[in-house]
Amino acid sequence: MQPDALKIRIYYEDTDFSGVVYHASYLRFMERGRTELLRARGQDQGAMHNSMDGLAFAVRKMTIDFIKPARMDDVITVVTAPHDIKGASMTLDQTVMRGEDILVTAQVQVACVRNGKATRIPDGLRKILGAEIL
Amino acid sequence: MQPDALKIRIYYEDTDFSGVVYHASYLRFMERGRTELLRARGQDQGAMHNSMDGLAFAVRKMTIDFIKPARMDDVITVVTAPHDIKGASMTLDQTVMRGEDILVTAQVQVACVRNGKATRIPDGLRKILGAEIL
Amino acid sequence: MQPDALKIRIYYEDTDFSGVVYHASYLRFMERGRTELLRARGQDQGAMHNSMDGLAFAVRKMTIDFIKPARMDDVITVVTAPHDIKGASMTLDQTVMRGEDILVTAQVQVACVRNGKATRIPDGLRKILGAEIL
Amino acid sequence: MQPDALKIRIYYEDTDFSGVVYHASYLRFMERGRTELLRARGQDQGAMHNSMDGLAFAVRKMTIDFIKPARMDDVITVVTAPHDIKGASMTLDQTVMRGEDILVTAQVQVACVRNGKATRIPDGLRKILGAEIL
Repeated sequence: MQPDALKIRIYYEDTDFSGVVYHASYLRFMERGRTELLRARGQDQGAMHNSMDGLAFAVRKMTIDFIKPARMDDVITVVTAPHDIKGASMTLDQTVMRGEDILVTAQVQVACVRNGKATRIPDGLRKILGAEIL
Repeated sequence: MQPDALKIRIYYEDTDFSGVVYHASYLRFMERGRTELLRARGQDQGAMHNSMDGLAFAVRKMTIDFIKPARMDDVITVVTAPHDIKGASMTLDQTVMRGEDILVTAQVQVACVRNGKATRIPDGLRKILGAEIL
Repeated sequence: MQPDALKIRIYYEDTDFSGVVYHASYLRFMERGRTELLRARGQDQGAMHNSMDGLAFAVRKMTIDFIKPARMDDVITVVTAPHDIKGASMTLDQTVMRGEDILVTAQVQVACVRNGKATRIPDGLRKILGAEIL
Repeated sequence: MQPDALKIRIYYEDTDFSGVVYHASYLRFMERGRTELLRARGQDQGAMHNSMDGLAFAVRKMTIDFIKPARMDDVITVVTAPHDIKGASMTLDQTVMRGEDILVTAQVQVACVRNGKATRIPDGLRKILGAEIL
């Protein structure tokens, strides 16, 4: 299974006065990557939240290496691949690239929650993602 | 009635690569000013939303003049004063200052909404704010 | 001349606890639209800033109507058209749509600045945009 | 040495449609905490950047645990303490609290950079922070 890749353009909003992309912006980009990975498996999170009584995904842990900065006007790629999946949580590997350059790498643990409590990841999604783990 | 004044420090997150504060950041600052104006009248918006079945305030119109930019580390003041109040909406005048310098001025119309529909501003709040209009 | 249209997906980052898109997010979307309008005319703002000694575009005035909210997972379109252009500033009309629905309309005046001072819009860009005004 | 503590109010801008604070917002809060720690030692980062030829601090690594969510209107505290300091980088321990509740813990490695290259942390600051490590 090929990991999912999302292309993102860098705009003013993503940068700070030091001249490069603000570090927290990469978390926004990686969240977009996870959202698109789920969407590609048929799970729109807004619809899940409405139809499944407030179900949402919440980040539990992140380990992030910021290696090189992106800059205004860059086009970057967020590569997202499932690493491990359990009943109520999953771990994903994410890499932000600019061409062949690796800018940021992260491992992200995401929990499925409802009303603030851990809840089982919807079966269909858990099976699909589980089968994709190498 | 004195208008409400909220002091805000400028951080990395508020700036962009041009070296000054990103224009949309002032809208965040002015929203903080409106939230503190309501809080000072006993209305916490999170509690309102929970206890009043999803009640929230939504911006309907803004006219904004960006006069001078704020910069990293500046301390600015957001001055907020009610200008007009009706059943389901109110208009506020807001000014962002740095010392005596006027950085941004705005007039903001805010509607009270529930499930996407205009709804009456809570009586207590409407009376208090109405009485404050000069 | 057809106005420029940029498609944008709504993510978690764009929303707030009231359940819909946070009002200041639309300013980020409209800035993306203006950046893409300039890029389509050969002007990357990061390159302009670096090669032209800190040249940047700064928003001077906005009048915005927030008509309907966008929601998580929506795909919206930002339509941007030059309205008027002068030596150091230009005015653009911007509309945020979801399908046929108009969500937000704005008129935005943008100034060309260097070191905080108004400066002439690069000739090539001013001519191209000037010729596009209906 | 007491660790530095910065109080922060949660506003609309910090939350997302799931009803709680958006995960990347905590990185903004922790950056505010680091900026105030430096300011309390006499180092304003905007002034450093201007007077020291573009000197800035850039996050290199973060390990973050998101334990409990903050909500609209909460007042949280960001506690920041230096953990280790070297020539061109330092590591800090940061905790986000709401009263006695621990919401987020992180370890953050920050590098001193100029024009994208690692550079020595200003001597005065390195000595002060070095002496504070327990």
